Amino acid sequence: MSTPGTAPGILWGVGVGPGDPDLLTVKAARVLSDTRVVAHFAKKGNAGTARTIAGPHLRPDWQELRLDYPFTTELEVGAADYTNGIEAFYDTSAARIAGYLDAGEPVAVLCEGDPFFYGSYMYLHDRLAGRYEARVIPGITGMGGCWAVAGTPITRWNDVMTVIPATLPEEALAQRLATTDAAVFMKVGRHLPKVRAALAAAGALDRAVYVERGTMANQKVVALADRPADEAAPYFSIVLVPGRGVRR
Amino acid sequence: MSTPGTAPGILWGVGVGPGDPDLLTVKAARVLSDTRVVAHFAKKGNAGTARTIAGPHLRPDWQELRLDYPFTTELEVGAADYTNGIEAFYDTSAARIAGYLDAGEPVAVLCEGDPFFYGSYMYLHDRLAGRYEARVIPGITGMGGCWAVAGTPITRWNDVMTVIPATLPEEALAQRLATTDAAVFMKVGRHLPKVRAALAAAGALDRAVYVERGTMANQKVVALADRPADEAAPYFSIVLVPGRGVRR
Repeated sequence: MSTPGTAPGILWGVGVGPGDPDLLTVKAARVLSDTRVVAHFAKKGNAGTARTIAGPHLRPDWQELRLDYPFTTELEVGAADYTNGIEAFYDTSAARIAGYLDAGEPVAVLCEGDPFFYGSYMYLHDRLAGRYEARVIPGITGMGGCWAVAGTPITRWNDVMTVIPATLPEEALAQRLATTDAAVFMKVGRHLPKVRAALAAAGALDRAVYVERGTMANQKVVALADRPADEAAPYFSIVLVPGRGVRR
Repeated sequence: MSTPGTAPGILWGVGVGPGDPDLLTVKAARVLSDTRVVAHFAKKGNAGTARTIAGPHLRPDWQELRLDYPFTTELEVGAADYTNGIEAFYDTSAARIAGYLDAGEPVAVLCEGDPFFYGSYMYLHDRLAGRYEARVIPGITGMGGCWAVAGTPITRWNDVMTVIPATLPEEALAQRLATTDAAVFMKVGRHLPKVRAALAAAGALDRAVYVERGTMANQKVVALADRPADEAAPYFSIVLVPGRGVRR
């Protein structure tokens, strides 16, 4: 319920890009320098990646609205307790933000990468965009940061590109690879052995590139075939399979 | 051949984003304000889209290196005369840029969207990155601008997303749609009737969104099903099919 006589604040979904603070857009930097209440998701006890990236662009008097995920370990996404818990969390988070909007205060929600590309912001957008003015500032995606630092064009001419969450079963990974020219595997982490096997079966292992923390100070870029098979990968690592330029 | 005693200039591939000049990154804006020689592709008689987008960020004393495509009409991409002509054009363009780099002058190549995502810059990168230091600044892709202005999250949870050049035959479009959760059709233009038919066959027409010139002043966003079937679409129009959040 908005305060009588006060126009509600605007909800901003702000893409902060893949890691380098200079990869925010000019527009995102300006909105952050104008907005006092800044919300961001984070794991408990963690600064929050989006918050760290946006740090240099925040106002000196910014007010933090921290949205702590209710789970600290990775539950199975399909499980009912996960689904119920996460939906309740987004409901509560949306209500907290709505409190500021009702008081006429704009709120910027920081989103790693792009808000509408696998971002948690969209679950707030689903709940709030019908009631408030919501504007989304696109961000450089994690994969876009990765192919830039890898120095690897990803699609040429009429290549088809498929973005594949590595959480899929191996047969599904292989099937997607068989019908695409370029591929990006997301959320690789513990699924890396499966991704490697699917790539080997498709004859694409030799052109796959592994990227970890692309555009951040501690980034790693290596040909996947050169990486020790038993080395662990963090959740947000990405594997790129560049297209070769189909001219059809 | 570089001038004796002069370090060669750096080649910058600068993503200028989808259309709104405020959607350049902070880094791209800074590099453009520091670089005097700015190259861009354009069709003869046309200002060039990347040049128009980057305009507000260029130095007052910038020096234009215009790379005019040899063809003014759309030839069949597979044809031998097209392939030979375009390869010779990229060779000549790379040689012109190398002249500046050899003289120690950095060159920024403006790229609509992202340089490594269906961008012409990569054909210069192929020819020059082995001989000169080449750095790519990723840009917001055209599709990223489109889903932001459409207010439409494109991928949730573990959705697979496929980027499909609309130039493919209708059966191939339908086959890609059948094995993906979210889709982006690029280079739609005269292929729109084929895209529409494939979407209707896949039962996905009702959630498809048509976007033209996303983030530009004259953008158009409309549910594809509401668009008159016989209305022509420009080459760079995009059709988005948002995923619905597969939790597997």
